[in-house]
Amino acid sequence: MNYIMSLGGKRIRPLLVLLGADACNSDIDIALPVAHATEVFHNFTLVHDDIMDNAPTRRGMPTVHEKWNTAEAILSGDNMLIAVYDILLKNQYAGQMKLLSLFNKTAREVCEGQQLDMDFASLSHVTEEQYMEMIRLKTAVLLGFSLQAGAILADADARIQELMYDFAINLGLSFQLNDDWLDAFGDPAQTGKKPGGDIAEGKKTWLYIKASAYFDIDALWNEKTGTERIEATTSLFLENRLDGILKEKADEYAAKSLTDLQELDNSGIDTTGLAELTRFLQMRSH
Amino acid sequence: MNYIMSLGGKRIRPLLVLLGADACNSDIDIALPVAHATEVFHNFTLVHDDIMDNAPTRRGMPTVHEKWNTAEAILSGDNMLIAVYDILLKNQYAGQMKLLSLFNKTAREVCEGQQLDMDFASLSHVTEEQYMEMIRLKTAVLLGFSLQAGAILADADARIQELMYDFAINLGLSFQLNDDWLDAFGDPAQTGKKPGGDIAEGKKTWLYIKASAYFDIDALWNEKTGTERIEATTSLFLENRLDGILKEKADEYAAKSLTDLQELDNSGIDTTGLAELTRFLQMRSH
Repeated sequence: MNYIMSLGGKRIRPLLVLLGADACNSDIDIALPVAHATEVFHNFTLVHDDIMDNAPTRRGMPTVHEKWNTAEAILSGDNMLIAVYDILLKNQYAGQMKLLSLFNKTAREVCEGQQLDMDFASLSHVTEEQYMEMIRLKTAVLLGFSLQAGAILADADARIQELMYDFAINLGLSFQLNDDWLDAFGDPAQTGKKPGGDIAEGKKTWLYIKASAYFDIDALWNEKTGTERIEATTSLFLENRLDGILKEKADEYAAKSLTDLQELDNSGIDTTGLAELTRFLQMRSH
Repeated sequence: MNYIMSLGGKRIRPLLVLLGADACNSDIDIALPVAHATEVFHNFTLVHDDIMDNAPTRRGMPTVHEKWNTAEAILSGDNMLIAVYDILLKNQYAGQMKLLSLFNKTAREVCEGQQLDMDFASLSHVTEEQYMEMIRLKTAVLLGFSLQAGAILADADARIQELMYDFAINLGLSFQLNDDWLDAFGDPAQTGKKPGGDIAEGKKTWLYIKASAYFDIDALWNEKTGTERIEATTSLFLENRLDGILKEKADEYAAKSLTDLQELDNSGIDTTGLAELTRFLQMRSH
């Protein structure tokens, strides 16, 4: 548990809790353990997902099940999930039941997202809608919970809470689509990794799904592997202008998140921190 | 999730919650979901433990990871653990925070028990104290929680709650030691299975630990497998009268549980149901 937590990461979820709490003037001493809990939960999902995905490395280091074994990784993850509830339940605070109920809904959705992601591997056809729903569940809802949690602690107006949730969801969807874009078209000098990882792994990303409408990507992938597959697939993506369409789609969600932010600003919420976070997350990309 | 829940079992944990609630006059509508939660939690541990132990069957049926796969079994277990908290948090009731806090402690202990059990496989020497602590954590504390939960809901006197917890712990330890006895010396006509399963699997049970003081059981097990190993080991157990010593030890905890029950009775608690459960659990054995 200490190992995975010490591997770092951007700590975006706890940051969202604290930004939400700060924007709504919540007590920071109450927000801190909630922030902590979101990062422990996120790392619990990483430990278990890495087993399910047979991933050898995480953040450039061996995954927990590689460094120890599957049994220890399952049990460490279980204990981290219990620790999340332990942290959320330790103190009593206003809004606790609402926060716990939203957290439970979110945790169920994250599991559902992981299940959908695994199902996609064996499905012959995945629609764009199904893909967007999968990344909403697997990635975005925990961001939504994190930011709203800060507002729940301050018992902020329902509309403020809703806007914060939606802002983080849209930010998360945009972030995930940018991730897909960077994986295929990113500059290695900026991303720090060779492009085409998703293609090499045969992952059904947004690009795969859209490309299926234009050419038989499965036949191509059955035929070619490695660098050959990456180069042929990327060429076909570019010929069909999928790089631009994906970028547009990511920007669409980014624009939605900015509309939410503007409405929060109009409601008297200081959105300086959230705007800064948005810029930070977009800076890393194209 | 539905599959594992439908495989049956004795449903002792929910029964304990309801018996505790009934004895303390708790509202049965509030106790029912708590009872449900204990059985879901127990089955969550079965699903994950079966992966860790590479178990092919559970209750005579394929385990979840055998029927589906490891990934589905991990995720189903995770979702069951989240469901436990969902059930415990759905309604608001008196004593909820105390109940959740004891549940979290218990859940952590159950994980610790499973970790100890796995550690034993690679330890060259396990003491009787370590073994008793392992079965206390892995099995008994959830029984203790279940019975006390019924009393917490009624906000029963602290001493009553403590006695209920201790009664169930002692009952659980006695039950587990009887299980070890039955596995080695039980009558197949009564237990429904061939004796010596633990010996064949090379499990470090109470008998193994005690036997290690009298003869080199590891050497014997390295030399022999299957029926030969079972017969040779059982003979050595019997020569050293370990059957009687184990039976005494199990009876010792059963006696402790009866003392707790007597004190509950003296405190005005109707213990008819608990006494009946004790007899039911002991009937199955020698």
